[in-house]
Amino acid sequence: MTRFNILCYDFCNPWKIAHFDEGVMPIIANGIEEEGMVHAVILAGGRGTRFWPLSRENCPKQMLHIVGEDTLLRQTIKRLNGFIPFDHIWIVTTDHLAQDIRFHLDFLGNDANKIHFIIEPSGRNTGPAVALAATILNQISPDSIMVVMPSDHIIRDTKAFQDKVHLAIEAAMQGYLVTFGIPPTRPETAYGYIRLGQPFRISTGEVFHAEGFFEKPELKTAEIFFHQGGYYWNSGIFVWRASKILHEIENHLPSLYEGLKHIEKLNDVRSETFRETYSSFENISIDHGVMEKSREVLVIPSDFGWSDLGNWTALSDVLERDEEGNIFRGEVLDVGSENSTVIGCDRVLATIGLKEMIVVDTPDATLISSKDMVHEVRKVVETLKRNHREEHRIHRTVERPWGSYTVLEKGDGYKIKKISLNPGAKLSLQLHRRRSEHWVILSGIAKVTTEDQTYFVHANQSTYIPVNTKHRLENPEKIPLHIIEVQNGDYVEEDDIERFDDEYGRT
Amino acid sequence: MTRFNILCYDFCNPWKIAHFDEGVMPIIANGIEEEGMVHAVILAGGRGTRFWPLSRENCPKQMLHIVGEDTLLRQTIKRLNGFIPFDHIWIVTTDHLAQDIRFHLDFLGNDANKIHFIIEPSGRNTGPAVALAATILNQISPDSIMVVMPSDHIIRDTKAFQDKVHLAIEAAMQGYLVTFGIPPTRPETAYGYIRLGQPFRISTGEVFHAEGFFEKPELKTAEIFFHQGGYYWNSGIFVWRASKILHEIENHLPSLYEGLKHIEKLNDVRSETFRETYSSFENISIDHGVMEKSREVLVIPSDFGWSDLGNWTALSDVLERDEEGNIFRGEVLDVGSENSTVIGCDRVLATIGLKEMIVVDTPDATLISSKDMVHEVRKVVETLKRNHREEHRIHRTVERPWGSYTVLEKGDGYKIKKISLNPGAKLSLQLHRRRSEHWVILSGIAKVTTEDQTYFVHANQSTYIPVNTKHRLENPEKIPLHIIEVQNGDYVEEDDIERFDDEYGRT
Repeated sequence: MTRFNILCYDFCNPWKIAHFDEGVMPIIANGIEEEGMVHAVILAGGRGTRFWPLSRENCPKQMLHIVGEDTLLRQTIKRLNGFIPFDHIWIVTTDHLAQDIRFHLDFLGNDANKIHFIIEPSGRNTGPAVALAATILNQISPDSIMVVMPSDHIIRDTKAFQDKVHLAIEAAMQGYLVTFGIPPTRPETAYGYIRLGQPFRISTGEVFHAEGFFEKPELKTAEIFFHQGGYYWNSGIFVWRASKILHEIENHLPSLYEGLKHIEKLNDVRSETFRETYSSFENISIDHGVMEKSREVLVIPSDFGWSDLGNWTALSDVLERDEEGNIFRGEVLDVGSENSTVIGCDRVLATIGLKEMIVVDTPDATLISSKDMVHEVRKVVETLKRNHREEHRIHRTVERPWGSYTVLEKGDGYKIKKISLNPGAKLSLQLHRRRSEHWVILSGIAKVTTEDQTYFVHANQSTYIPVNTKHRLENPEKIPLHIIEVQNGDYVEEDDIERFDDEYGRT
Repeated sequence: MTRFNILCYDFCNPWKIAHFDEGVMPIIANGIEEEGMVHAVILAGGRGTRFWPLSRENCPKQMLHIVGEDTLLRQTIKRLNGFIPFDHIWIVTTDHLAQDIRFHLDFLGNDANKIHFIIEPSGRNTGPAVALAATILNQISPDSIMVVMPSDHIIRDTKAFQDKVHLAIEAAMQGYLVTFGIPPTRPETAYGYIRLGQPFRISTGEVFHAEGFFEKPELKTAEIFFHQGGYYWNSGIFVWRASKILHEIENHLPSLYEGLKHIEKLNDVRSETFRETYSSFENISIDHGVMEKSREVLVIPSDFGWSDLGNWTALSDVLERDEEGNIFRGEVLDVGSENSTVIGCDRVLATIGLKEMIVVDTPDATLISSKDMVHEVRKVVETLKRNHREEHRIHRTVERPWGSYTVLEKGDGYKIKKISLNPGAKLSLQLHRRRSEHWVILSGIAKVTTEDQTYFVHANQSTYIPVNTKHRLENPEKIPLHIIEVQNGDYVEEDDIERFDDEYGRT
């Protein structure tokens, strides 16, 4: 219960976090003591449309495990290990995603509940998101150092990353806005570029003045940048003092600054005023709003194996390809394909003679696209959303804090689910107004509580929960519990649930 | 029961059918009385690998509903309506497929049980298949006229087809081997060609001597054939007297003829000798073995909307395309594809920028292929077969004479099925040695019989069938019965079934 209270506290009253009072935390690394309070601000509001059908509205790209040993968000947090503790990590996301992300972080261990959440009333791009985080951290201390990073990038070399961030922290403490420039390996048109200016020596190494920011260029320009040298990809990772970035926002985005001042005076983050004010902010990136305009930007050339994994095509840059340039995952039977990426799930995918293609299969939707047009996937997602289709929103298997469920079939008046409960897990005490439920236990032992009684149901036994009956399902054992649930009723949607008690604060 | 006895009679003792004694049936059409016994011989042994994943070993191409109003086989039979009655239709197929085809034909009405089956012990191409049918029909009467046709072709104009067949019957009665030549519409390399010779006048119209048969040509040759004129596609549909084709087989395929004589003396079609003799026959087509060599072949130029639908690419010749040359079926969301065919089922298929591609989706397997390499699908099917994968053999939904079942999920020690029983349908009285079954009724009323009792289970009720318990499931109502079956056991395969009584002769 404690755990979720902290989360709720964050959710409901982020402003109270201004009383956060740990004081100055010394950071020791590279043999240098960096005094100041270092915080990681992880931007996790992305909807991840570009990785549909693997990403969904409720499971965006940052929550996907596509490259590396864990999901992109958990890798982002693990990358701070031994360097920035959980209670100095701030995740900026939307109300809509926050709870799922919270559950998602449980896999990092109990201490993950110390991670803070900053909830945006609506997604307004990185400018307002960074500004909101800066306002909070500035209240903790104007000297707070913010390491701002996206939640869905890949960085292969954690040691190199931490070293560069330490260098950046030193530069930030001297009052600069610091960013990381990635040495380009090709004339990429999907990234912004930074031109390096004069070098600038600080005690732990050399950094450079930024001489110019260039938005995603045309191919010709990208080729010039690439061949001329001195141009680096803009990684979207920044380090600065909270007070410094607010000062720059005041200079370059005055209306945003005014809005923040207004918000700061509010006591209730749930107020309509907060929502309205935030939602009125210009939809602008911090790059475009501040970095391109400020004269106090430093760049650290950084070769730490970065990729922003911008879309499905980018996957072929970070995963190992076979001799024909293909990447196959899952049950793929291929004949003669070239330079194609095929991501399967539990079904057979037979691919024949593909050239420069992307195939991504999930239980309820499959994407088949030429690589050069894969960015058009957003149109597909828009269509699904417009048609209120679940395929844009959720997967057929939904992860929950207590385990997961998979919708095996849904029809007129019924729904079949396979439900898996983790050892010790407990669903909420609940009631459905319009459906009854048959449970058949596949493996494990179920503890069932209804209004009258508590009883145990073993594998190969079944039980029945009539409509309008309070009930609770638990897994009292040390092995997972798997059950088949057959719902019968005139309405079998997820929102027919009344919760009376919940381990996860969902009442 | 009677119905199935006839089927079993055919299955087990085809030679007894030699006593078939309906006598001469007058056929009246086109104002002319054609005396003689006309029989349709439908070659339905094809495995339909080329239409995987829609076709499976147990559901080959002829049983698919892909073009037109019904499955290809049922269309083939309906095309004979009012012209050749059910009891003059002979389906030549393998033991393996015969029962499924029998169930498949039930949809044609009760009289469909009059259709005869000739069972090949193993598939040996059209030469031996036609020879076996000719032997049987020759025993009925040497004057029997055989209209031999594949079970999986498309013919759009039934009236024109029947008219041409009548013409062919007249020519066949004069002792010729008659075939139909399709006027080519392109220099196709996938078809054989026939060169027309001198015209030949018979009372109902004009036919031509065949001057030469040409196997599937190279493109250059095909172009010459196409532009020069006088060359027609070989439709694979033939008409001749049973005695005549046997005579030609004697001349051109003497060892096959000797084998047939040997088989004819056998009394027991289930004998190992029959199987061994038949299986020793050369794997040869009737075209190659007889038609190309005989000097008594006539051709009837026939423009009745024919296609052999040879593979997925051929589909775009017979289905209507959109302005970009695409064919979309099912839930397809497309952005900018061209000349592509996308066949979906119940899942979302998002296709982006496809060019000359074939996509075919089924619940357990998806094919994605360039059009020009789609013939390689056979390699995929071979791999699946080698690996004993069900995806080459059956669909997730299996049609049965009593209804159908769909495997929703299968895991270690369990299987979940959705079962649908037609009104009045009755499963066999059966028993499972290694699994128990939970049944939850979704809609309809189930009548359940066990050793001790008979009882009724209504929608939203469930029942349990323990392991080793005789049971029977029936749908006593006039609406379909839908149930969810959860099987539990250490072995949950279909072959754990002991049948004691069965409506469909499967005990």
